[in-house]
Amino acid sequence: LVAVSARSPKPDLPLDGVRWDDDPLALARAADIDCVVELMGGAEGPALALAEATLAAGKPLVTANKALLAAHGLALARAAEAKGVALRYEAAVAGGIPVIKALLESLAGNRIDTVAGILNGTCNYILTRMAAEGLSFEAVLADAQKLGYAEADPATDVDGWDSAHKLALLAALAFGAPPDLASLSVQGIRSITPLDHRFAAELGYRIKLLGVATRSDDGVEARVAPALLPVGSPLAGVDGVINAVSVKGAPVGTVTFVGPGAGGDPTASAVLGDVVDVARGAVGLPFGRAADALRPWPLLPVARRRGAWYVRLCVSDQPGVVAGIAGILRDEAISIESLLQFGRSRTDSVPVILITHDVAEDALFRAVDAIAGLPFVWDKPFCLRLQPS
Amino acid sequence: LVAVSARSPKPDLPLDGVRWDDDPLALARAADIDCVVELMGGAEGPALALAEATLAAGKPLVTANKALLAAHGLALARAAEAKGVALRYEAAVAGGIPVIKALLESLAGNRIDTVAGILNGTCNYILTRMAAEGLSFEAVLADAQKLGYAEADPATDVDGWDSAHKLALLAALAFGAPPDLASLSVQGIRSITPLDHRFAAELGYRIKLLGVATRSDDGVEARVAPALLPVGSPLAGVDGVINAVSVKGAPVGTVTFVGPGAGGDPTASAVLGDVVDVARGAVGLPFGRAADALRPWPLLPVARRRGAWYVRLCVSDQPGVVAGIAGILRDEAISIESLLQFGRSRTDSVPVILITHDVAEDALFRAVDAIAGLPFVWDKPFCLRLQPS
Repeated sequence: LVAVSARSPKPDLPLDGVRWDDDPLALARAADIDCVVELMGGAEGPALALAEATLAAGKPLVTANKALLAAHGLALARAAEAKGVALRYEAAVAGGIPVIKALLESLAGNRIDTVAGILNGTCNYILTRMAAEGLSFEAVLADAQKLGYAEADPATDVDGWDSAHKLALLAALAFGAPPDLASLSVQGIRSITPLDHRFAAELGYRIKLLGVATRSDDGVEARVAPALLPVGSPLAGVDGVINAVSVKGAPVGTVTFVGPGAGGDPTASAVLGDVVDVARGAVGLPFGRAADALRPWPLLPVARRRGAWYVRLCVSDQPGVVAGIAGILRDEAISIESLLQFGRSRTDSVPVILITHDVAEDALFRAVDAIAGLPFVWDKPFCLRLQPS
Repeated sequence: LVAVSARSPKPDLPLDGVRWDDDPLALARAADIDCVVELMGGAEGPALALAEATLAAGKPLVTANKALLAAHGLALARAAEAKGVALRYEAAVAGGIPVIKALLESLAGNRIDTVAGILNGTCNYILTRMAAEGLSFEAVLADAQKLGYAEADPATDVDGWDSAHKLALLAALAFGAPPDLASLSVQGIRSITPLDHRFAAELGYRIKLLGVATRSDDGVEARVAPALLPVGSPLAGVDGVINAVSVKGAPVGTVTFVGPGAGGDPTASAVLGDVVDVARGAVGLPFGRAADALRPWPLLPVARRRGAWYVRLCVSDQPGVVAGIAGILRDEAISIESLLQFGRSRTDSVPVILITHDVAEDALFRAVDAIAGLPFVWDKPFCLRLQPS
């Protein structure tokens, strides 16, 4: 370690024998620095400037900055390739889990069909405690903030954007496309209730915030959303702040990686792995093929997105409810795997849970809109995908 | 693909446009072959001859041959380093799971403390079905042989040797030592009974054949043995022919890899990953450091091996049994976490299960020998380690 800088004023760190620079860009320019490690964060500003200056100076860059790469990955890859230097970012996705190298190198002989992951430890911590303790999202969030597991402004985590940055990188690597945050659908976990966890458990599922990118002949679908996972599937048992990524490909089958997804120590492990690679002379292509050979993926049209769904309704407890709902589903050719009513009430709403068989997403949402208009339906229906195991 | 050979006569394969050679060594000599992939198997004979000839010719070698590397890894690494060529063997351990590269590269910045894995799909299939269906080892083995999950001669799998070959490689990578099969203790799964699975389940454990290598300040312990894993730990839920490896290190923490451990397709994925690395110009050191810098590990003395144990006894159902057993344990300063008797019988033996707190292994085996000599103890006590989660 030769020199250190920061976006903020000089931190109170032991820097014995290590140079301090007020200006991060000085690191890119210094003749005695062979490799720059960027850990400042942020998609723009000093992090972007340092990344650009480092690569322009022909120096390898190691970064943990998912937002930077999700926004500027293609341009930075071009810059690295132009100078023939490494751009490495193992720490940007799932912390200590070496999934970037697995996709870039170990699984290079595969056609990757699906990447699915629990990519945000804060959300997984919140969902795990909600499920285990029957608590509300707000209660667990407040506790997580006290314990340091959630930021004062939790939006990046709980609204799915941190997961989306990571999924954009995983999907790019899996499918040979430039990272493209805008092509992802993103939904967070604020609307999950303790009831959803209870119903899911009774039906044999766990609710997790998943980032999923799937390729079929008709196109790619990439989304971050809470989903129901069958108990016993590799990701369903991943609890607390732990991250996990499952990669399904041919010929390999499904390989799942589980480990610590955030924090200084796992990040250090991933950064050190990249630095060792750079020291050993590895260059590689940042996205596994030349930046100019990356092709944006055709998006799978909504009508072609098929899957099973969990739908939670609040209805009046009166005759004709099931007939009304079932009629709308029949009109959209949606078949029902289970329909469960929980509790009874003459005066209040009662929850009804539907699990559908595989349906086209547009048909499901037309049906849900129609159901929302029924006189005995109290709230907008809440829908979650069932993730196939 | 340029040419193919085999240890047996020419197989009935489609070889359009690919040369057949009766002599595998011709592949090492041929001027038009840049890289040899060895998939013949066997620690000696044609596989060893081909590996030596390939490296001597200055050509990179990709192999799936765990037995070869466990026996001759150090010499082959020296040969590869002498010529500056790659020796890659991702497919040799845990099939499609990229754990060799993870240890060599991704986790290179870590001190690895423990590597623990379910490394043999045949054994895991047998143990999973025994646990789920209450069947005997012999019954499931016979079925596994019919289904092609077990060989006609199952000894290499069920007696732990296949796992031992893989553990020898994992331990070498984790601890910077030459692979040393002779330093491992190896125990198979033939003695596990349906009762053990039932008792384990009642106590909150699953029985898995584990390969475990652990480093402490006092030395390294490496063993293949069936062990009790707490339900909910990452390896306990890995069922059927699936393999899994957990790596515990600092700073990373624990990272677990789960996936298909054997078969043509996962092996192909691992071999292709290695071939792509070779094609990209990666050389590396076969064991992550120079062969001459690998140091045999000091073995942890038995008296320093501490852990909790499951002990199954068959005893007469009579007064004084618990007092007799407990007295012996007290004399060896072994404390008991649980002692359970299952069933009652005036005429037959009944099983008694002991779970100890952490004890030194030599003390446990002295106590077990003494217990075996008690007049009311029918059979040799059967002992399994509890694997910490």
